[in-house]
Amino acid sequence: MYKAPVAEIAFTLRHVAGLDQAIEIGSVGDLSADLADAILEEAARFTDNEIVPLAAIGDTEGARLVDGVVVLPKGWPKLYRDWAAGGWNGLTASPEFGGQGLPQMLNVATLEMWNGASMAFGLAPTLTMGAIEALSAHGSPALKDRYLARMISGEWTGTMNLTEPHAGSDVGALTSRAERHEDGSYRIFGQKIYITWGDHDAADNIIHLVLARLPDAPPGTRGISLFLVPKFLVGADGSLGARNDLFCHSLEHKLGIHGSPTCTMIYGDGRLGETPGAIGWLVGEENRGLACMFTMMNNARLAVAMQGVGVCEAATQKAVAYARERRQGRAAGHHGGSMSPIVDHPDVARMLLTMKALTQGARAITYACAHAIDLSHAGMDTNHWRSRAALLTPIAKAFATDCGVDVASLGIQVHGGMGYIEETGAARLWRDARIAPIYEGTNGIQAIDLVTRKLPLDGGQAVRGLIGELQAICERVAASGLPLFGATADRLRMAIADIEAATEWLLSAQAGNRIEEALAGATPYLRLFGLVLSGCYLAKGGMAVADDGEGEARIALCRFAAKNLLPETAALKDQVMRGADSLIAARALLT
Amino acid sequence: MYKAPVAEIAFTLRHVAGLDQAIEIGSVGDLSADLADAILEEAARFTDNEIVPLAAIGDTEGARLVDGVVVLPKGWPKLYRDWAAGGWNGLTASPEFGGQGLPQMLNVATLEMWNGASMAFGLAPTLTMGAIEALSAHGSPALKDRYLARMISGEWTGTMNLTEPHAGSDVGALTSRAERHEDGSYRIFGQKIYITWGDHDAADNIIHLVLARLPDAPPGTRGISLFLVPKFLVGADGSLGARNDLFCHSLEHKLGIHGSPTCTMIYGDGRLGETPGAIGWLVGEENRGLACMFTMMNNARLAVAMQGVGVCEAATQKAVAYARERRQGRAAGHHGGSMSPIVDHPDVARMLLTMKALTQGARAITYACAHAIDLSHAGMDTNHWRSRAALLTPIAKAFATDCGVDVASLGIQVHGGMGYIEETGAARLWRDARIAPIYEGTNGIQAIDLVTRKLPLDGGQAVRGLIGELQAICERVAASGLPLFGATADRLRMAIADIEAATEWLLSAQAGNRIEEALAGATPYLRLFGLVLSGCYLAKGGMAVADDGEGEARIALCRFAAKNLLPETAALKDQVMRGADSLIAARALLT
Repeated sequence: MYKAPVAEIAFTLRHVAGLDQAIEIGSVGDLSADLADAILEEAARFTDNEIVPLAAIGDTEGARLVDGVVVLPKGWPKLYRDWAAGGWNGLTASPEFGGQGLPQMLNVATLEMWNGASMAFGLAPTLTMGAIEALSAHGSPALKDRYLARMISGEWTGTMNLTEPHAGSDVGALTSRAERHEDGSYRIFGQKIYITWGDHDAADNIIHLVLARLPDAPPGTRGISLFLVPKFLVGADGSLGARNDLFCHSLEHKLGIHGSPTCTMIYGDGRLGETPGAIGWLVGEENRGLACMFTMMNNARLAVAMQGVGVCEAATQKAVAYARERRQGRAAGHHGGSMSPIVDHPDVARMLLTMKALTQGARAITYACAHAIDLSHAGMDTNHWRSRAALLTPIAKAFATDCGVDVASLGIQVHGGMGYIEETGAARLWRDARIAPIYEGTNGIQAIDLVTRKLPLDGGQAVRGLIGELQAICERVAASGLPLFGATADRLRMAIADIEAATEWLLSAQAGNRIEEALAGATPYLRLFGLVLSGCYLAKGGMAVADDGEGEARIALCRFAAKNLLPETAALKDQVMRGADSLIAARALLT
Repeated sequence: MYKAPVAEIAFTLRHVAGLDQAIEIGSVGDLSADLADAILEEAARFTDNEIVPLAAIGDTEGARLVDGVVVLPKGWPKLYRDWAAGGWNGLTASPEFGGQGLPQMLNVATLEMWNGASMAFGLAPTLTMGAIEALSAHGSPALKDRYLARMISGEWTGTMNLTEPHAGSDVGALTSRAERHEDGSYRIFGQKIYITWGDHDAADNIIHLVLARLPDAPPGTRGISLFLVPKFLVGADGSLGARNDLFCHSLEHKLGIHGSPTCTMIYGDGRLGETPGAIGWLVGEENRGLACMFTMMNNARLAVAMQGVGVCEAATQKAVAYARERRQGRAAGHHGGSMSPIVDHPDVARMLLTMKALTQGARAITYACAHAIDLSHAGMDTNHWRSRAALLTPIAKAFATDCGVDVASLGIQVHGGMGYIEETGAARLWRDARIAPIYEGTNGIQAIDLVTRKLPLDGGQAVRGLIGELQAICERVAASGLPLFGATADRLRMAIADIEAATEWLLSAQAGNRIEEALAGATPYLRLFGLVLSGCYLAKGGMAVADDGEGEARIALCRFAAKNLLPETAALKDQVMRGADSLIAARALLT
């Protein structure tokens, strides 16, 4: 049974991601370490006591469409309302509208918990928070006044309506349309697919943010506008009015996240018997919807990364617990008549340690990204931290969600035959995890974003600066003289040399307009970056408590990762720097 | 929609695995290349026309337990009977009992097809063939006369009853018991779990092979005996008699292979109202059941490997077809207004080429293993080929089934959001594939088998001989002077040097009694071996048709694999040779 890992989360926040320092220099407002701990403890309590017991039923029962209305799994509407009542939805939102104005670092930490217990449940806040962020950044004062407070409180949830059947990764291909109405509102028409929590019975209203085209809009991404389209119209006094002309047409039958309703939404088909058209209001400017969308998506990308981390943690806890209990065979050096717990078999230990190292590495990267976001809002070195956050976001999203799938798969393997039985729960984690590398920009898109948009930031200095920090960590390991690290510093140095060489190669490939070659290496490059960051952050954590017994364990895990996971970096560098030509040559095979 | 890849299968059999040569030197009986082609064509026809259309319903409907009887999915009983009527079950079985005495190479090729269409369906013959093999090798003449012919014809299916709740990988821990009966038969009592096709409504009888202990048996694996326990007793004239005291108690609710009933079987609980005890007959000698079991399992391991290959092929076909149709964005160099097919995006091409290369690599390894089995039966160099088959079996099983999961996962990713929707079918392949690294000996067990039992064969000469053959392939590539190979030979040479170094390290670790260190590296070592074999076999195939246009495509894929997949070998070698100490040191974290 998943238990929110409060101590590990707090440790990573404070000693690896930089929360302690941020508190010290006053860049996270009034937050103190004690308050942070109290919040984490409270979130853990809610997770363990409320979400965990309802996670499995969310999977087996799933969301259902009953007479045109989406019904959540048993107990989930109350679960959601209790969660919102706890104030969790507004953790980072503006106090002006009832939010708590806390740093993103705490938000990602709590997101990790909700998602560790149930990814399907964790999606509700993920989408609402994205909508809040977009509305906060781009909405008119009138729209904000009418909608924000109750979205921040969680009374109303939010959605993101981007995808259409022929417009997925290529959002510019969408065809939903909006017509201007004389009163300043708009009428929205079209079909959207894969709308997460698009309808449900846990909130009084659902605020849809919908991308559509005006009649005179230019083609492609420059002709997209964003609209706020509520399920129920909202009066000037905040009262709920008429049902809007938008409906959930069907639910997808998915591999996982069954508790999360994935809706096909129909806007403006006139089924209410009045003039067709869903009533909506413009967010931001006409034809500038893409910028608003990126505000939503950037937030959502880090939130999806937390799904990866949450699943990693849940799968690791489950596998370690099983491997301690389950006895099979006799491990080398085992004496006596009984069988050994399988954790004693080196091959099983390799799986479990790999799971642990990837979990902690992915966690550290995502928290470091949240830290950069927080500091970019603190008014010091804003550009530096904004670039850092921009650089880390695609790595956090893709690396953590890939780890989610890989770690959950190892979790199944540790369970043997039991892992394949649904009641065990290991399979659910793997099924749930598999969506995260796909949505909010596939991991291929993240890699392309990293290589083509993020590497060139500040003329390459953003990425070089980050690599420089990793080198500093590595030199501190070398200088520490701690014998437990073994050859870790050497291994880290090699890995950092790999990311450095691959980075410079990609920068020069792009400068030389060899775009296709750069794109061919995007995915291995992102993984390479994720592994190097993981290794360095594990080392940083180890050094932070080197004097305690805890340090010993952290350093041992870091050394395992250095010797057993980091060797992959050389292969990844090779793929980036020497793989493209053969890839481009072999492409003819596919067509 | 999966289409059995006859041409690719025939190519790999003939030019990579050695079928042409085996025919030439007369070591596969009367088989000609024409006959082999005809058999493959016929198998493909049955697969495409009969199995493929019923694969999805097998998943959605699944096997069900209705009033104590297992009911297969709609259409499956007839499907199975038609398949058996085609003579497919007896392809390699002895002509003495109605089999066709054909080589294993053809059997694995057809197994690949059944499993490519539906792993759940492919399990029926897998289990029956294992039972036939055990009975053929160890059964008394009387048992063979009574049972073999109708098992070979497929009229009756077979099962393997090994696992008990506390005896999975450690089969020696089982507690099912057998009592001697005065008439020479035995009475069997106990519970077995995970019994594939343990009950169903497609055959008139089911012949269970059950491991159990006699009252005076020594503990552990030396006290296990194997019994034949039919669902219906069989008279001397072959007529079906009374129902035996064995029942399917429940079906597992599994992640995949839903069409395959996974039964908990109860033996001898007396529910028929007579004296309790399932009536069985000894196979082989008392307390020597383990040897019989290995006969079943060895066969089944290669059959499970074919599930990996089948899923790889199915997932690759599906993803390539989708990537050609689906249009999103504009690829580099794309002109004109419409979107590019996603196959034109280098990142998607990387996924598809990886899928293709792993599929062909896994296929070549499994066919080479079947070739070795065939030659070991041909009476020339028997010991050499027996060692070769023994060496390749764990690699074939683990590498091919790991590839099955990885390739199916890439297949989902290529489909984007569609991949997560069950109706698309990509998810079914992934769910189905996930069991194959677990059953018939987990892939960790395969790796341990490879390192501890197979490497030492013939004092290490078996493995060194195989590596020598790979070196010869590599030198032929270098000597070919074919410019399309690019730097392939160099890359292969590095990869072969890696497997050589890791092999010698493991041999000396074992010679030096550093068993735990050797075990710690078993899994990366097996993968390293699989990758090197894949690369060399792809090169061998490319050289076989270097003069044709086909050769160009094969060499391009080989070069892609050499540059993009083989770099991993250095990392794997590092894990084997330098990873153990940190793994053993970090193990304390887990307990």
